[in-house]
Amino acid sequence: MTAATGMTLQDIYAPIKDDLQRVEDLLEKELSAHSGKIKDLVDHVTSFSGKRMRPALTLLAAKCFDRVETAHIYASTVVELIHSATLVHDDILDEAQIRRGVPTISSIWGTEISVLLGDYLFSRAFAVIAEFDGSQCLPYFTRTTDKMCEGELIQLKSRYDLNLTEEMYLKIAELKTASLCALSTQLGALLSGADKETVASFYTFGLNLGLAFQITDDCLDITGEEDVVGKSLGTDLGQGKLTLPAIRLLQRLDGDERDEIKKVMQNGLSGESRPRFHELIREHGMVESSLETARALVDEGWQRLESIPDSDAKQGLRALGDYILSRDL
Amino acid sequence: MTAATGMTLQDIYAPIKDDLQRVEDLLEKELSAHSGKIKDLVDHVTSFSGKRMRPALTLLAAKCFDRVETAHIYASTVVELIHSATLVHDDILDEAQIRRGVPTISSIWGTEISVLLGDYLFSRAFAVIAEFDGSQCLPYFTRTTDKMCEGELIQLKSRYDLNLTEEMYLKIAELKTASLCALSTQLGALLSGADKETVASFYTFGLNLGLAFQITDDCLDITGEEDVVGKSLGTDLGQGKLTLPAIRLLQRLDGDERDEIKKVMQNGLSGESRPRFHELIREHGMVESSLETARALVDEGWQRLESIPDSDAKQGLRALGDYILSRDL
Repeated sequence: MTAATGMTLQDIYAPIKDDLQRVEDLLEKELSAHSGKIKDLVDHVTSFSGKRMRPALTLLAAKCFDRVETAHIYASTVVELIHSATLVHDDILDEAQIRRGVPTISSIWGTEISVLLGDYLFSRAFAVIAEFDGSQCLPYFTRTTDKMCEGELIQLKSRYDLNLTEEMYLKIAELKTASLCALSTQLGALLSGADKETVASFYTFGLNLGLAFQITDDCLDITGEEDVVGKSLGTDLGQGKLTLPAIRLLQRLDGDERDEIKKVMQNGLSGESRPRFHELIREHGMVESSLETARALVDEGWQRLESIPDSDAKQGLRALGDYILSRDL
Repeated sequence: MTAATGMTLQDIYAPIKDDLQRVEDLLEKELSAHSGKIKDLVDHVTSFSGKRMRPALTLLAAKCFDRVETAHIYASTVVELIHSATLVHDDILDEAQIRRGVPTISSIWGTEISVLLGDYLFSRAFAVIAEFDGSQCLPYFTRTTDKMCEGELIQLKSRYDLNLTEEMYLKIAELKTASLCALSTQLGALLSGADKETVASFYTFGLNLGLAFQITDDCLDITGEEDVVGKSLGTDLGQGKLTLPAIRLLQRLDGDERDEIKKVMQNGLSGESRPRFHELIREHGMVESSLETARALVDEGWQRLESIPDSDAKQGLRALGDYILSRDL
């Protein structure tokens, strides 16, 4: 089975086009339900709608079993609401000014509104679970939101910890990022009535895609910085968050070079120290090495779906993996 | 039926002492479940454990029907977790340094940790719902968390709005504060199998207690300021949040005095303008007038429980109302 490289998101989403529209409609309905006085805030959230990757994961997984049920539409909507809530809160943490070309909530309305709006989106997510017969799914959602918060908290507490191992890095990435992607594909299969083993395979596929997503994000934080001078990338390392290329560089170096880079990273990467850091990253091929790991994860995830009959939807999942690996790099 | 005035919380909680301990145990279990690396943060939350008023409302309501079931223990735990989550996030909004004599999470670990820890507590709340057969209760919880977030957002957006009516003030107080107290008593009755009308009566009782709680809080924000100079009270008016005594004062005044106070409040009450504001509040008896409203609300709530057979638990609910009216004033 060959990878469907070079496909646009529109191509990839073709088998679930109508279903994604139902998710959009439900999102709009759920967010306008109570908004009244806070309509401008909620409208702003919908304006940075993003790639809808997580709903697409659920719907494509569902479509692998032929039918997309109403429960899938609801589950996809919940997953996207949880994702939106974390974005609004992440923008506070990162002091981000821009998200997808649109000013962030926190940059317009400040921290207070952002805290509450994120809470509201989180609350709406659980409200949507309550609307469909979500009692079967509720523990899946809460296990995931627990993990996401834990991952973010552990990451925050691990900032400037230069002893952070690759294993620990992967654990954090699994908790904070990959767990929601894993949930997305898992629910697609679960709500289609797939057997336990198949549900687990879809879980792993989503998990590996999510890990790959985090790793490519890490790499963009470095290569984006290099090429697009003046753009507000490079925030991870600036805030002492160790990325995979940085962890590997620290492992690779020894002697004076190691001490030098340790010192740079202990102070948080800045305009002054960046060129030297990038020079070493390039010299040791740390971005390439990280992207290889990301590709291996996507491939390993794909293998887990071997026994699933081929379909446009299944090829769509593969293509989404390729899309993640090649995005903006 | 006379009000059981002068009772301590310990007296009031006597009929549910063992049940409250079960809630404490469950809270501890639920918060230690995943905490590992974030144990110090979670431990800090449990250290400002507060009055456990909301679990007590659920348990006393349950006890009015004789038996406290396991579901009540779980529901009480969820209510307290939701309350804790909002406290952690509120402390960010208020830039509070101290909560119940303990430094706030945000003052020790900063905004980022506070945002995430609040999210984690929120997530744990829904996880506990998933643990007991909470599918019946889930919509009750989500309707409430929706309201709480909406109320906080509307309040934030209404800051420095000197046209805020008393009606709007009460609506905000209902959403952000009273709805959780209403849920607490409502679930006590609902999970005891009470009929619809009785459940509604317990809802109203909790709602009115919650409104009274907010109004006494407003009054403390003023009288606390007056008496305990140097203590960090008076934050509401300092941040442009209109309290009931302030709204009534604005309604009462006219001409130059009204213009004068409008100007003071538009700029946020400060050390300089406070004495004059307090003078007018005192002169017009606005704290007393607000406390009368609070008492009327508690009495009205109590009347809704008329048909419930008398018991220690029922008297406990009445005493909790009195406790709220007389706290620290």
